[in-house]
Amino acid sequence: MTFHGIIPPIVTPINADGTVNFGDLTRLVEHLIAAGVHGIFALGSTGQVAYLSEENRVAVVRAICTTAAGRVPVIAGAMEVSAPGVIRTARAMIEAGADAIVTTAPLYTINDEAEIAEHFRMVAAGIDVPLFAYDIPVRAHKKLSPRLLVQLGKEGVIVGVKDSSGDDVGFRRLIAMNRAAGKPLALFTGHEVVVDAMAMIGADGAVPGLANVDAAAYVRLWNAAKAGDMKTAMEEQEYLNRLFEIVFVATGRSGDAAGVGAFKAAMGLKGLLSSASLTAPLKPLDAPTLEAIGKIVSELNALAA
Amino acid sequence: MTFHGIIPPIVTPINADGTVNFGDLTRLVEHLIAAGVHGIFALGSTGQVAYLSEENRVAVVRAICTTAAGRVPVIAGAMEVSAPGVIRTARAMIEAGADAIVTTAPLYTINDEAEIAEHFRMVAAGIDVPLFAYDIPVRAHKKLSPRLLVQLGKEGVIVGVKDSSGDDVGFRRLIAMNRAAGKPLALFTGHEVVVDAMAMIGADGAVPGLANVDAAAYVRLWNAAKAGDMKTAMEEQEYLNRLFEIVFVATGRSGDAAGVGAFKAAMGLKGLLSSASLTAPLKPLDAPTLEAIGKIVSELNALAA
Amino acid sequence: MTFHGIIPPIVTPINADGTVNFGDLTRLVEHLIAAGVHGIFALGSTGQVAYLSEENRVAVVRAICTTAAGRVPVIAGAMEVSAPGVIRTARAMIEAGADAIVTTAPLYTINDEAEIAEHFRMVAAGIDVPLFAYDIPVRAHKKLSPRLLVQLGKEGVIVGVKDSSGDDVGFRRLIAMNRAAGKPLALFTGHEVVVDAMAMIGADGAVPGLANVDAAAYVRLWNAAKAGDMKTAMEEQEYLNRLFEIVFVATGRSGDAAGVGAFKAAMGLKGLLSSASLTAPLKPLDAPTLEAIGKIVSELNALAA
Amino acid sequence: MTFHGIIPPIVTPINADGTVNFGDLTRLVEHLIAAGVHGIFALGSTGQVAYLSEENRVAVVRAICTTAAGRVPVIAGAMEVSAPGVIRTARAMIEAGADAIVTTAPLYTINDEAEIAEHFRMVAAGIDVPLFAYDIPVRAHKKLSPRLLVQLGKEGVIVGVKDSSGDDVGFRRLIAMNRAAGKPLALFTGHEVVVDAMAMIGADGAVPGLANVDAAAYVRLWNAAKAGDMKTAMEEQEYLNRLFEIVFVATGRSGDAAGVGAFKAAMGLKGLLSSASLTAPLKPLDAPTLEAIGKIVSELNALAA
Repeated sequence: MTFHGIIPPIVTPINADGTVNFGDLTRLVEHLIAAGVHGIFALGSTGQVAYLSEENRVAVVRAICTTAAGRVPVIAGAMEVSAPGVIRTARAMIEAGADAIVTTAPLYTINDEAEIAEHFRMVAAGIDVPLFAYDIPVRAHKKLSPRLLVQLGKEGVIVGVKDSSGDDVGFRRLIAMNRAAGKPLALFTGHEVVVDAMAMIGADGAVPGLANVDAAAYVRLWNAAKAGDMKTAMEEQEYLNRLFEIVFVATGRSGDAAGVGAFKAAMGLKGLLSSASLTAPLKPLDAPTLEAIGKIVSELNALAA
Repeated sequence: MTFHGIIPPIVTPINADGTVNFGDLTRLVEHLIAAGVHGIFALGSTGQVAYLSEENRVAVVRAICTTAAGRVPVIAGAMEVSAPGVIRTARAMIEAGADAIVTTAPLYTINDEAEIAEHFRMVAAGIDVPLFAYDIPVRAHKKLSPRLLVQLGKEGVIVGVKDSSGDDVGFRRLIAMNRAAGKPLALFTGHEVVVDAMAMIGADGAVPGLANVDAAAYVRLWNAAKAGDMKTAMEEQEYLNRLFEIVFVATGRSGDAAGVGAFKAAMGLKGLLSSASLTAPLKPLDAPTLEAIGKIVSELNALAA
Repeated sequence: MTFHGIIPPIVTPINADGTVNFGDLTRLVEHLIAAGVHGIFALGSTGQVAYLSEENRVAVVRAICTTAAGRVPVIAGAMEVSAPGVIRTARAMIEAGADAIVTTAPLYTINDEAEIAEHFRMVAAGIDVPLFAYDIPVRAHKKLSPRLLVQLGKEGVIVGVKDSSGDDVGFRRLIAMNRAAGKPLALFTGHEVVVDAMAMIGADGAVPGLANVDAAAYVRLWNAAKAGDMKTAMEEQEYLNRLFEIVFVATGRSGDAAGVGAFKAAMGLKGLLSSASLTAPLKPLDAPTLEAIGKIVSELNALAA
Repeated sequence: MTFHGIIPPIVTPINADGTVNFGDLTRLVEHLIAAGVHGIFALGSTGQVAYLSEENRVAVVRAICTTAAGRVPVIAGAMEVSAPGVIRTARAMIEAGADAIVTTAPLYTINDEAEIAEHFRMVAAGIDVPLFAYDIPVRAHKKLSPRLLVQLGKEGVIVGVKDSSGDDVGFRRLIAMNRAAGKPLALFTGHEVVVDAMAMIGADGAVPGLANVDAAAYVRLWNAAKAGDMKTAMEEQEYLNRLFEIVFVATGRSGDAAGVGAFKAAMGLKGLLSSASLTAPLKPLDAPTLEAIGKIVSELNALAA
């Protein structure tokens, strides 16, 4: 099993009463696979991992893996405060079918780089599937340096990285250092709007939240880039970037509500979700915001037609 | 049961093999109660909550509560990513005897103030003991505003606050707003070196990590301040502040290793712990650091004699 | 000449056309001296140093010093990007009558502590009056450590510190280290709402922007604290803290507009300024904000009557 | 006159005694022009603008412009605290020959976006050459949003942007918004290691500090990218990225000393500077660091031979 290409961080469909909508989830997995995605990242930030109970997290992973049935690999996000906590939830996810686990630097703690490295070693030693590191300083509040990541790759602790650090200089250095070390890591960008450029410079894939809204476009983008057709890749990227403006519509809302809320709203308009509800304590987007998102989506549909 | 005065965030004694030393923990609880503390905060940052497995967290709370046996209240720290996660671990701690729960703003997420408020409401609705808010932006990466905290107090969602925000202007406003609202909240400072001043201006207590090393001095400080004897309170504070320099000795180490490591090292020198070991992935302090800490402690003992 | 007590960071009165109102400035200096202040800090953040031309800065210092005429010392703020820039503007201010200069860590640059120390040494070597360090990380984006400041004090580079760092733990350590070093530094808090407590624990004075609105109350506070009458000091402080709420009234405005705008608005209501105008690019506060500020001020006047 | 392509932020050569080495500066300008650069950015962060006196700044601009003699445009950096300060220094630079001015968001102040916009409008109204905005939050501590920048472009306030924000998502949005607005802005990346990708996605040029060390390689990179030969562009970029590792060699040094120090050290090895001295308060890099930098440079020369 290899990890590469477009691996959407799948949203977790939520009913208006706050429960998980497993019917929608199953249909969404089928939809993504039909669109040609190369894997599924369950329970990332877009999947609202940080709002769900452990029972729901495991049930979500189980539903996704059961539906995927080995057609594409499933990477499950185990975001927890401590290494023992990560291991516990990761094991439950593995039992539920996860092919790999992804986790961040430790939360809450104040650590140096050696301690962060040891944290990943502890997690890897506690699970029996491949481990990915998730570099997302805006949430974990620690930056994982290229040196640290490649070192962990060389040790066999991690097999890849999802980079949502917004640090393009660091990601470029990571690609170079990884190559110099014999490519122990599969490197994924988490930034929706630069997948074409990241493909060109050597990324192994992307984990774009926006792929929930238009997975097929990301697959076309990726395949074009891999075939050396950067012109097509850039055209798809530029269409997607116009679509991505939906996350900037909501004003006066939190990043989590504005972002995941926009994805779910657009998915609802496209018939991919029966409700745009978010998990508590996040409240739904208001009507003017939904209308503005709808306008962006419909105009782009017109362009695409 | 009231919450006030000196409530040390008790360290979690760890053996060299990484297991919890429950013998030391029991003795430490007895030592603190004998020193006159007014409560115990189990599993704060100093108690290394963010490094322990859930099993160990619950066992630590149980040991502390069993030993305290109602002589002083025990507040247990439930630091988790999500509201459901906080509730689950909090319930286990309550079953183990915790008299109250303390938790931070949600970790990992990107929320606005309304969502943070709702998070605390969700947690409070899920437990049946008093809830404290722990304001520690350096770890939770969200500042809890005075307005938010007093609002939650007025609603009965929280009964108090541990303030480790390092924002003395904010804490002063919190005291004033709380008073204007009829004092719904008990307000504790988490900063070791300003307890005298905070007592004078209206804090209801303190949660000083350094009280693990010299609880009796903090109790004398607090009692003097409450009796209006600020001169004695300041003398005790200044002695404690000289002692607090132990946390600044370690250079090139993480904040967690330097801080908790220094407390444990000094406690070992005073016979309060049989090992200064920290939880993995934190490594022990090195010999020169321990020696420098020992010098500070022994010089202050000489002064105190 | 000694530096101690209440040293207001005087606002710079601005006419509606953007010019400096030197008449108001002169009257304000007289008003502050009549209220018993122990010095004047010209061109701090409250004095909008960062918005004025060099010509205006020098003219403001000259007007203040001419009016003060040696009755109280005048400390002038020389906030510039580089050491040569600080020296140039400082020399012009000294020629205009400044008794001392205050400056921050270098702006714009990315420096370590040794470089910051050397920056202050360069500035001190270039001027012939006492130099103060202004620790204000929210503007200079570098924290001046207690160790650095006391070292510079021992070398004779600086004679004092204005601390607006919001780091009460650091300020307490600074007081202790300064005392242990033989008190080379005069230590001032820049935080309006904690002057009573800072006086008690050993601050040498305060530089409260709010003293522009009610200097007499700060002088009463300070004199009471120095006389050991903490009860009176705290009563004055609590009155001032209610008054300080004016800076939190403006919503959706920048910190500079909300803060200095509120001071000027209240000063206008008290007849201390003929215009509440701010320097460009700051726009005036809107009518509802001014009304809410007026309500706070008038209610407190009623209480005080 | 148009602004595009490779516009190195030229270092300011410094003698061991701290004076500017104008002979080296003149030779360096000739060297860069001979290498084919499309412009010169005088007095950026790499040019140590924030350490030089105003006299030296103006003299440096004059020397560069006199040497360039219109063969390539010269953009001069006017980094000052206030709009009046920016205008004053900018006018002196324009008198000395600068073809355009570049400046950041205001330093020291706490502003909202409307105030920052007005700041740029004030600066533009005070000078009679084109103005560039320099987006460098790590130094100016304010992020310039794509919306703000394009708005200023549409108004004719600014003609371009140097982006050193490290925010590739924001830069991509800026390119898209600028295009949608009719391209009022010329957009330059300030990040050395991603010029190939930025060229591909639509940047108008780059301002790479590393071009001081190997301008010809950047010119080859740029020309290849513009000719659609991304393979060659990427090969040049990857060579340059290996060279860029020189800035990561120094450990325990400030960002300014490590970065500019490394560029100057490599330039010395290539015969482009007679001294690698930095401006005070920056101290030279130590011998082991210089040796390690030399090793990187010489190994790459070998590869290039």
